Amino acid sequence: MGKKAVCLISGGLDSAVSAFIAKDMGYNLFALSFIYGQRHNKEIESAKKIAKALYVKKHVIFNIDISQFGGSSLVDESIKPEIDHKLEDIGNDIPNTYIPARNTIFLSIALNFAETIDADAIFIGATAVDYSGYPDCRPEYFTAFQKMADLATKKGVNGKSIRIITPVLKLDKAEIIKKGFTLGVPFDKTWSCYLGKEKSCGRCDSCLLRLKGFKKAGLKDPLKYEILPDWY
Amino acid sequence: MGKKAVCLISGGLDSAVSAFIAKDMGYNLFALSFIYGQRHNKEIESAKKIAKALYVKKHVIFNIDISQFGGSSLVDESIKPEIDHKLEDIGNDIPNTYIPARNTIFLSIALNFAETIDADAIFIGATAVDYSGYPDCRPEYFTAFQKMADLATKKGVNGKSIRIITPVLKLDKAEIIKKGFTLGVPFDKTWSCYLGKEKSCGRCDSCLLRLKGFKKAGLKDPLKYEILPDWY
Repeated sequence: MGKKAVCLISGGLDSAVSAFIAKDMGYNLFALSFIYGQRHNKEIESAKKIAKALYVKKHVIFNIDISQFGGSSLVDESIKPEIDHKLEDIGNDIPNTYIPARNTIFLSIALNFAETIDADAIFIGATAVDYSGYPDCRPEYFTAFQKMADLATKKGVNGKSIRIITPVLKLDKAEIIKKGFTLGVPFDKTWSCYLGKEKSCGRCDSCLLRLKGFKKAGLKDPLKYEILPDWY
Repeated sequence: MGKKAVCLISGGLDSAVSAFIAKDMGYNLFALSFIYGQRHNKEIESAKKIAKALYVKKHVIFNIDISQFGGSSLVDESIKPEIDHKLEDIGNDIPNTYIPARNTIFLSIALNFAETIDADAIFIGATAVDYSGYPDCRPEYFTAFQKMADLATKKGVNGKSIRIITPVLKLDKAEIIKKGFTLGVPFDKTWSCYLGKEKSCGRCDSCLLRLKGFKKAGLKDPLKYEILPDWY
Protein backbone atom coordinates (compact mmCIF):
# COMPACT_ATOMS: atom_id res chain seq x y z
CA MET A 1 0.00 0.00 0.00
CA GLY A 2 1.26 3.49 -0.87
CA LYS A 3 1.11 6.59 1.25
CA LYS A 4 -1.82 6.95 3.65
CA ALA A 5 -3.89 9.89 4.81
CA VAL A 6 -6.54 10.32 7.48
CA CYS A 7 -9.36 12.48 6.11
CA LEU A 8 -11.76 14.20 8.45
CA ILE A 9 -15.18 13.94 6.84
CA SER A 10 -18.00 15.89 8.46
CA GLY A 11 -20.65 15.37 5.81
CA GLY A 12 -20.25 18.97 4.68
CA LEU A 13 -19.04 20.34 1.40
CA ASP A 14 -15.57 21.58 2.41
CA SER A 15 -14.39 18.32 3.95
CA ALA A 16 -15.77 16.34 0.99
CA VAL A 17 -13.80 18.46 -1.48
CA SER A 18 -10.68 18.17 0.73
CA ALA A 19 -10.94 14.39 0.79
CA PHE A 20 -11.38 14.24 -3.00
CA ILE A 21 -8.23 16.39 -3.30
CA ALA A 22 -6.38 13.87 -1.08
CA LYS A 23 -7.55 11.05 -3.31
CA ASP A 24 -6.47 13.00 -6.40
CA MET A 25 -3.01 13.38 -4.79
CA GLY A 26 -2.69 9.59 -4.67
CA TYR A 27 -3.27 8.93 -0.98
CA ASN A 28 -4.95 5.83 0.36
CA LEU A 29 -7.76 7.25 2.42
CA PHE A 30 -8.81 6.47 5.99
CA ALA A 31 -11.94 8.44 6.81
CA LEU A 32 -12.73 9.75 10.29
CA SER A 33 -16.08 11.21 11.32
CA PHE A 34 -17.35 12.25 14.70
CA ILE A 35 -20.62 11.81 16.53
CA TYR A 36 -20.10 14.51 19.13
CA GLY A 37 -23.57 15.33 20.33
CA GLN A 38 -24.87 17.11 17.23
CA ARG A 39 -28.54 18.02 17.18
CA HIS A 40 -29.15 15.72 14.22
CA ASN A 41 -27.47 12.83 12.41
CA LYS A 42 -27.94 14.07 8.84
CA GLU A 43 -24.26 15.03 8.79
CA ILE A 44 -23.11 11.56 9.72
CA GLU A 45 -25.35 9.96 7.09
CA SER A 46 -23.81 12.29 4.52
CA ALA A 47 -20.31 11.47 5.76
CA LYS A 48 -20.99 7.77 5.22
CA LYS A 49 -22.15 8.38 1.63
CA ILE A 50 -19.11 10.51 0.86
CA ALA A 51 -16.68 7.96 2.34
CA LYS A 52 -18.32 5.30 0.20
CA ALA A 53 -18.02 7.44 -2.92
CA LEU A 54 -14.28 7.82 -2.13
CA TYR A 55 -13.69 4.06 -1.73
CA VAL A 56 -11.87 4.66 1.55
CA LYS A 57 -9.88 1.78 3.10
CA LYS A 58 -11.65 2.28 6.40
CA HIS A 59 -14.21 4.68 7.85
CA VAL A 60 -14.10 5.17 11.62
CA ILE A 61 -17.18 6.80 13.13
CA PHE A 62 -15.87 8.08 16.44
CA ASN A 63 -18.19 8.72 19.38
CA ILE A 64 -17.19 11.58 21.62
CA ASP A 65 -19.80 13.31 23.71
CA ILE A 66 -18.50 16.86 24.06
CA SER A 67 -22.09 17.98 24.62
CA GLN A 68 -21.74 16.96 28.29
CA PHE A 69 -19.88 20.22 28.95
CA GLY A 70 -22.58 22.26 27.15
CA GLY A 71 -21.93 25.70 25.77
CA SER A 72 -22.81 25.67 22.04
CA SER A 73 -26.02 25.82 20.05
CA LEU A 74 -24.73 22.95 17.88
CA VAL A 75 -24.83 20.57 20.82
CA ASP A 76 -27.02 22.30 23.39
CA GLU A 77 -30.75 22.05 22.79
CA SER A 78 -31.43 25.15 24.89
CA ILE A 79 -29.54 27.46 22.48
CA LYS A 80 -30.88 27.97 18.94
CA PRO A 81 -28.61 28.66 15.95
CA GLU A 82 -28.99 32.22 14.70
CA ILE A 83 -30.69 32.70 11.33
CA ASP A 84 -31.31 35.34 8.65
CA HIS A 85 -27.94 37.06 9.03
CA LYS A 86 -26.83 39.45 6.32
CA LEU A 87 -24.11 37.82 4.26
CA GLU A 88 -21.62 40.59 5.04
CA ASP A 89 -22.08 40.06 8.78
CA ILE A 90 -21.17 36.37 8.77
CA GLY A 91 -17.67 35.75 10.15
CA ASN A 92 -17.29 39.10 11.92
CA ASP A 93 -18.05 37.71 15.35
CA ILE A 94 -17.67 34.27 16.86
CA PRO A 95 -21.24 32.89 16.62
CA ASN A 96 -23.07 30.76 19.17
CA THR A 97 -22.49 27.67 17.00
CA TYR A 98 -18.83 27.83 18.10
CA ILE A 99 -17.79 24.69 19.98
CA PRO A 100 -14.73 25.32 22.14
CA ALA A 101 -11.64 23.57 20.80
CA ARG A 102 -13.61 21.40 18.37
CA ASN A 103 -10.97 21.29 15.64
CA THR A 104 -8.28 20.70 18.26
CA ILE A 105 -10.18 17.73 19.65
CA PHE A 106 -10.87 16.31 16.18
CA LEU A 107 -7.28 16.80 14.98
CA SER A 108 -5.86 15.28 18.18
CA ILE A 109 -7.88 12.13 17.66
CA ALA A 110 -6.91 12.12 13.97
CA LEU A 111 -3.29 12.33 15.12
CA ASN A 112 -3.75 9.17 17.18
CA PHE A 113 -5.35 7.41 14.18
CA ALA A 114 -2.61 8.63 11.81
CA GLU A 115 0.24 7.51 14.03
CA THR A 116 -1.39 4.15 14.70
CA ILE A 117 -1.70 3.33 10.97
CA ASP A 118 1.57 5.11 10.05
CA ALA A 119 -0.12 7.72 7.86
CA ASP A 120 1.81 10.70 6.51
CA ALA A 121 -0.96 13.24 6.50
CA ILE A 122 -4.25 14.44 7.93
CA PHE A 123 -6.65 16.32 5.64
CA ILE A 124 -9.11 18.76 7.18
CA GLY A 125 -11.54 20.90 5.21
CA ALA A 126 -11.25 24.08 7.24
CA THR A 127 -11.70 27.33 5.41
CA ALA A 128 -10.76 30.83 6.54
CA VAL A 129 -12.45 32.72 3.70
CA ASP A 130 -16.22 32.16 3.55
CA TYR A 131 -16.34 30.92 7.11
CA SER A 132 -18.15 31.41 10.35
CA GLY A 133 -15.47 33.24 12.30
CA TYR A 134 -14.29 30.31 14.40
CA PRO A 135 -10.79 30.95 15.81
CA ASP A 136 -9.67 27.38 15.08
CA CYS A 137 -10.15 27.83 11.32
CA ARG A 138 -7.40 30.41 10.90
CA PRO A 139 -4.07 29.66 9.16
CA GLU A 140 -2.01 30.65 12.22
CA TYR A 141 -3.94 28.13 14.28
CA PHE A 142 -3.03 25.28 11.93
CA THR A 143 0.63 26.35 11.88
CA ALA A 144 0.67 26.21 15.67
CA PHE A 145 -1.11 22.85 15.70
CA GLN A 146 1.47 21.40 13.28
CA LYS A 147 4.33 22.53 15.49
CA MET A 148 2.68 21.05 18.57
CA ALA A 149 1.89 17.78 16.74
CA ASP A 150 5.52 17.37 15.65
CA LEU A 151 6.56 17.58 19.30
CA ALA A 152 3.73 15.34 20.53
CA THR A 153 4.25 12.25 18.40
CA LYS A 154 6.74 9.44 18.03
CA LYS A 155 6.82 10.09 14.29
CA GLY A 156 7.59 13.75 14.92
CA VAL A 157 10.39 12.85 17.35
CA ASN A 158 11.81 10.59 14.65
CA GLY A 159 11.79 13.44 12.15
CA LYS A 160 8.76 12.26 10.17
CA SER A 161 6.07 14.87 10.48
CA ILE A 162 2.41 13.92 10.18
CA ARG A 163 1.41 16.79 7.94
CA ILE A 164 -1.81 18.66 8.68
CA ILE A 165 -3.08 19.52 5.19
CA THR A 166 -5.79 22.16 4.72
CA PRO A 167 -6.32 22.17 0.96
CA VAL A 168 -9.28 24.58 0.92
CA LEU A 169 -8.14 26.91 3.71
CA LYS A 170 -7.53 29.90 1.47
CA LEU A 171 -10.22 29.24 -1.14
CA ASP A 172 -13.56 31.00 -1.10
CA LYS A 173 -16.71 28.87 -1.22
CA ALA A 174 -17.13 29.34 -4.98
CA GLU A 175 -13.58 28.17 -5.61
CA ILE A 176 -14.09 25.15 -3.36
CA ILE A 177 -17.26 24.24 -5.24
CA LYS A 178 -15.60 24.65 -8.65
CA LYS A 179 -12.65 22.52 -7.51
CA GLY A 180 -15.11 19.91 -6.27
CA PHE A 181 -16.94 19.81 -9.57
CA THR A 182 -13.71 19.11 -11.50
CA LEU A 183 -12.99 16.21 -9.11
CA GLY A 184 -16.50 14.74 -9.30
CA VAL A 185 -17.58 15.44 -5.72
CA PRO A 186 -21.18 14.24 -5.28
CA PHE A 187 -22.59 17.48 -3.84
CA ASP A 188 -26.05 15.95 -3.58
CA LYS A 189 -24.63 13.68 -0.84
CA THR A 190 -23.23 16.57 1.25
CA TRP A 191 -25.10 18.39 4.02
CA SER A 192 -24.43 21.90 5.32
CA CYS A 193 -27.54 23.09 7.18
CA TYR A 194 -27.26 23.50 10.97
CA LEU A 195 -30.78 22.14 11.32
CA GLY A 196 -31.57 18.51 10.63
CA LYS A 197 -34.84 18.73 8.74
CA GLU A 198 -35.69 16.93 5.51
CA LYS A 199 -34.76 19.97 3.43
CA SER A 200 -32.04 22.51 4.17
CA CYS A 201 -33.44 25.58 5.92
CA GLY A 202 -31.87 28.20 3.64
CA ARG A 203 -31.58 30.64 6.56
CA CYS A 204 -28.72 29.59 8.87
CA ASP A 205 -25.16 30.87 8.30
CA SER A 206 -24.08 27.55 6.85
CA CYS A 207 -26.89 27.46 4.23
CA LEU A 208 -26.29 31.11 3.33
CA LEU A 209 -22.55 30.61 2.77
CA ARG A 210 -23.21 27.51 0.69
CA LEU A 211 -25.81 29.21 -1.51
CA LYS A 212 -23.59 32.24 -1.97
CA GLY A 213 -20.80 29.90 -3.12
CA PHE A 214 -22.94 28.07 -5.68
CA LYS A 215 -24.28 31.35 -7.01
CA LYS A 216 -20.80 32.86 -7.39
CA ALA A 217 -19.51 29.65 -8.98
CA GLY A 218 -22.36 29.80 -11.50
CA LEU A 219 -23.45 26.29 -10.56
CA LYS A 220 -26.69 24.84 -9.26
CA ASP A 221 -26.85 23.41 -5.74
CA PRO A 222 -28.52 19.97 -6.05
CA LEU A 223 -29.93 20.15 -2.48
CA LYS A 224 -33.54 21.11 -1.75
CA TYR A 225 -34.26 24.16 0.43
CA GLU A 226 -37.29 25.17 2.49
CA ILE A 227 -36.79 28.77 1.48
CA LEU A 228 -34.22 30.52 -0.68
CA PRO A 229 -32.83 34.00 0.09
CA ASP A 230 -34.01 36.72 -2.30
CA TRP A 231 -30.48 37.32 -3.61
CA TYR A 232 -30.06 33.70 -4.77
CA MET B 1 -17.07 31.70 42.98
CA GLY B 2 -13.38 32.59 42.58
CA LYS B 3 -11.01 31.43 39.89
CA LYS B 4 -11.57 28.01 38.38
CA ALA B 5 -9.26 25.29 37.14
CA VAL B 6 -9.81 22.04 35.29
CA CYS B 7 -7.60 19.33 36.82
CA LEU B 8 -6.78 16.20 34.87
CA ILE B 9 -6.88 13.36 37.39
CA SER B 10 -5.70 9.98 36.17
CA GLY B 11 -5.69 8.16 39.47
CA GLY B 12 -1.90 8.26 39.54
CA LEU B 13 0.42 10.00 41.93
CA ASP B 14 1.62 12.89 39.74
CA SER B 15 -1.83 14.15 38.79
CA ALA B 16 -3.02 13.86 42.40
CA VAL B 17 -0.15 16.02 43.64
CA SER B 18 -0.77 18.51 40.80
CA ALA B 19 -4.42 18.84 41.75
CA PHE B 20 -3.56 19.36 45.40
CA ILE B 21 -1.16 22.11 44.30
CA ALA B 22 -4.00 23.73 42.34
CA LYS B 23 -6.20 23.58 45.43
CA ASP B 24 -3.40 25.06 47.52
CA MET B 25 -3.19 27.93 44.99
CA GLY B 26 -6.82 28.78 45.71
CA TYR B 27 -8.52 27.44 42.59
CA ASN B 28 -11.99 26.00 42.59
CA LEU B 29 -11.44 22.57 41.09
CA PHE B 30 -13.26 20.81 38.27
CA ALA B 31 -11.86 17.31 37.86
CA LEU B 32 -11.64 15.51 34.54
CA SER B 33 -10.81 11.83 34.15
CA PHE B 34 -10.86 9.62 31.09
CA ILE B 35 -12.07 6.14 30.40
CA TYR B 36 -10.15 5.56 27.19
CA GLY B 37 -9.99 1.83 26.83
CA GLN B 38 -7.53 1.06 29.61
CA ARG B 39 -6.97 -2.57 30.46
CA HIS B 40 -8.39 -2.08 33.94
CA ASN B 41 -10.51 0.41 35.88
CA LYS B 42 -8.38 0.64 39.01
CA GLU B 43 -7.13 4.03 37.81
CA ILE B 44 -10.63 5.45 37.49
CA GLU B 45 -11.61 4.16 40.93
CA SER B 46 -8.53 5.92 42.33
CA ALA B 47 -9.38 9.10 40.40
CA LYS B 48 -12.83 9.15 42.02
CA LYS B 49 -11.36 8.81 45.50
CA ILE B 50 -8.83 11.59 44.87
CA ALA B 51 -11.47 13.95 43.45
CA LYS B 52 -13.59 13.30 46.53
CA ALA B 53 -10.64 14.03 48.83
CA LEU B 54 -10.18 17.34 46.97
CA TYR B 55 -13.85 18.38 47.38
CA VAL B 56 -14.02 19.25 43.65
CA LYS B 57 -17.03 21.23 42.38
CA LYS B 58 -17.63 18.64 39.67
CA HIS B 59 -15.94 15.48 38.44
CA VAL B 60 -16.52 14.58 34.80
CA ILE B 61 -15.62 11.01 33.84
CA PHE B 62 -15.21 11.26 30.10
CA ASN B 63 -15.61 8.23 27.85
CA ILE B 64 -13.39 8.20 24.79
CA ASP B 65 -12.54 4.93 23.15
CA ILE B 66 -9.12 5.53 21.60
CA SER B 67 -8.49 1.80 21.80
CA GLN B 68 -10.45 1.38 18.55
CA PHE B 69 -7.37 2.50 16.60
CA GLY B 70 -5.14 0.04 18.52
CA GLY B 71 -1.41 0.50 18.77
CA SER B 72 -0.49 0.54 22.48
CA SER B 73 -0.06 -2.05 25.18
CA LEU B 74 -2.09 0.13 27.55
CA VAL B 75 -5.20 -0.28 25.44
CA ASP B 76 -4.44 -3.28 23.20
CA GLU B 77 -4.86 -6.67 24.87
CA SER B 78 -2.52 -8.30 22.34
CA ILE B 79 0.51 -6.27 23.48
CA LYS B 80 1.87 -6.77 27.01
CA PRO B 81 3.56 -3.98 28.99
CA GLU B 82 7.29 -4.59 29.39
CA ILE B 83 8.53 -5.46 32.90
CA ASP B 84 11.77 -5.81 34.90
CA HIS B 85 13.58 -2.92 33.20
CA LYS B 86 16.73 -1.58 34.83
CA LEU B 87 15.97 1.79 36.40
CA GLU B 88 18.62 3.55 34.31
CA ASP B 89 17.03 2.27 31.08
CA ILE B 90 13.56 3.72 31.76
CA GLY B 91 12.91 6.82 29.67
CA ASN B 92 15.64 6.25 27.09
CA ASP B 93 13.29 4.88 24.45
CA ILE B 94 9.62 5.40 23.79
CA PRO B 95 8.06 2.26 25.35
CA ASN B 96 5.15 0.23 23.99
CA THR B 97 2.84 1.78 26.60
CA TYR B 98 2.99 4.99 24.53
CA ILE B 99 -0.45 6.02 23.26
CA PRO B 100 -0.18 8.33 20.25
CA ALA B 101 -1.22 11.88 21.09
CA ARG B 102 -2.80 10.91 24.41
CA ASN B 103 -1.93 14.11 26.26
CA THR B 104 -2.98 16.14 23.22
CA ILE B 105 -6.38 14.45 23.17
CA PHE B 106 -6.84 14.85 26.94
CA LEU B 107 -5.74 18.50 26.94
CA SER B 108 -7.96 19.32 23.95
CA ILE B 109 -11.00 17.99 25.76
CA ALA B 110 -9.91 19.82 28.92
CA LEU B 111 -9.72 22.97 26.80
CA ASN B 112 -13.35 22.54 25.79
CA PHE B 113 -14.34 21.99 29.44
CA ALA B 114 -12.30 25.01 30.60
CA GLU B 115 -13.75 27.36 28.02
CA THR B 116 -17.28 26.15 28.68
CA ILE B 117 -17.06 26.89 32.42
CA ASP B 118 -14.83 29.98 31.94
CA ALA B 119 -11.86 28.50 33.80
CA ASP B 120 -8.48 30.21 33.80
CA ALA B 121 -6.26 27.17 33.95
CA ILE B 122 -5.80 23.48 33.25
CA PHE B 123 -3.56 21.45 35.56
CA ILE B 124 -1.87 18.35 34.21
CA GLY B 125 0.53 16.17 36.19
CA ALA B 126 3.04 15.45 33.45
CA THR B 127 6.63 14.99 34.48
CA ALA B 128 9.74 15.07 32.33
CA VAL B 129 12.20 13.85 34.96
CA ASP B 130 11.40 10.37 36.26
CA TYR B 131 9.22 9.58 33.30
CA SER B 132 8.64 6.99 30.67
CA GLY B 133 10.09 8.80 27.67
CA TYR B 134 6.79 9.85 26.11
CA PRO B 135 7.30 12.78 23.69
CA ASP B 136 4.17 14.56 24.93
CA CYS B 137 5.59 14.96 28.43
CA ARG B 138 8.43 17.31 27.45
CA PRO B 139 8.45 21.02 28.33
CA GLU B 140 8.74 22.09 24.67
CA TYR B 141 5.58 20.12 23.91
CA PHE B 142 3.57 22.02 26.54
CA THR B 143 4.93 25.35 25.31
CA ALA B 144 3.74 24.50 21.80
CA PHE B 145 0.37 23.30 23.10
CA GLN B 146 -0.13 26.57 24.99
CA LYS B 147 0.59 28.60 21.86
CA MET B 148 -1.83 26.50 19.82
CA ALA B 149 -4.50 26.71 22.54
CA ASP B 150 -4.31 30.49 22.64
CA LEU B 151 -5.02 30.57 18.90
CA ALA B 152 -7.75 27.91 19.10
CA THR B 153 -10.07 29.40 21.68
CA LYS B 154 -12.46 32.31 22.03
CA LYS B 155 -10.79 33.21 25.33
CA GLY B 156 -7.39 33.21 23.63
CA VAL B 157 -8.70 35.46 20.82
CA ASN B 158 -10.00 37.82 23.51
CA GLY B 159 -6.57 37.96 25.14
CA LYS B 160 -7.44 35.72 28.09
CA SER B 161 -5.22 32.68 27.90
CA ILE B 162 -6.36 29.39 29.42
CA ARG B 163 -3.07 28.54 31.09
CA ILE B 164 -1.76 24.98 30.83
CA ILE B 165 -0.08 24.49 34.21
CA THR B 166 2.34 21.61 34.75
CA PRO B 167 3.35 22.00 38.40
CA VAL B 168 5.42 18.82 38.66
CA LEU B 169 6.99 18.87 35.19
CA LYS B 170 10.52 19.53 36.36
CA LEU B 171 10.39 17.70 39.69
CA ASP B 172 11.78 14.23 40.15
CA LYS B 173 9.51 11.58 41.64
CA ALA B 174 10.97 11.99 45.15
CA GLU B 175 10.33 15.75 45.04
CA ILE B 176 6.76 15.16 43.82
CA ILE B 177 6.15 12.73 46.67
CA LYS B 178 7.62 15.08 49.28
CA LYS B 179 5.51 17.95 47.92
CA GLY B 180 2.46 15.70 48.09
CA PHE B 181 3.13 14.77 51.70
CA THR B 182 3.27 18.42 52.75
CA LEU B 183 -0.12 18.98 51.05
CA GLY B 184 -1.75 15.90 52.57
CA VAL B 185 -2.18 13.88 49.35
CA PRO B 186 -3.74 10.51 50.24
CA PHE B 187 -1.16 8.33 48.47
CA ASP B 188 -2.98 5.19 49.57
CA LYS B 189 -5.78 6.22 47.19
CA THR B 190 -3.48 6.61 44.15
CA TRP B 191 -2.66 3.87 41.65
CA SER B 192 0.38 3.68 39.39
CA CYS B 193 0.74 0.05 38.22
CA TYR B 194 0.13 -0.66 34.52
CA LEU B 195 -1.58 -3.92 35.50
CA GLY B 196 -4.93 -3.95 37.26
CA LYS B 197 -4.46 -6.66 39.86
CA GLU B 198 -5.36 -6.39 43.52
CA LYS B 199 -1.80 -5.47 44.48
CA SER B 200 0.65 -3.43 42.41
CA CYS B 201 2.98 -5.68 40.40
CA GLY B 202 6.23 -4.03 41.46
CA ARG B 203 7.80 -4.84 38.08
CA CYS B 204 6.39 -2.49 35.40
CA ASP B 205 8.08 0.86 34.64
CA SER B 206 5.39 2.74 36.50
CA CYS B 207 5.80 0.72 39.72
CA LEU B 208 9.59 0.94 39.50
CA LEU B 209 9.58 4.74 39.12
CA ARG B 210 7.13 5.10 41.99
CA LEU B 211 9.14 2.88 44.34
CA LYS B 212 12.38 4.65 43.42
CA GLY B 213 10.68 7.95 44.29
CA PHE B 214 9.47 6.82 47.71
CA LYS B 215 12.87 5.33 48.52
CA LYS B 216 14.70 8.54 47.53
CA ALA B 217 12.17 10.66 49.45
CA GLY B 218 12.78 8.53 52.53
CA LEU B 219 9.06 7.77 52.81
CA LYS B 220 7.04 4.59 52.85
CA ASP B 221 4.68 3.80 49.97
CA PRO B 222 1.34 2.80 51.55
CA LEU B 223 0.41 0.55 48.59
CA LYS B 224 0.83 -3.21 48.66
CA TYR B 225 3.08 -4.90 46.08
CA GLU B 226 3.23 -8.47 44.75
CA ILE B 227 6.98 -8.28 44.66
CA LEU B 228 9.49 -5.59 45.55
CA PRO B 229 12.69 -4.97 43.61
CA ASP B 230 15.88 -5.94 45.47
CA TRP B 231 17.11 -2.33 45.57
CA TYR B 232 14.01 -1.09 47.45
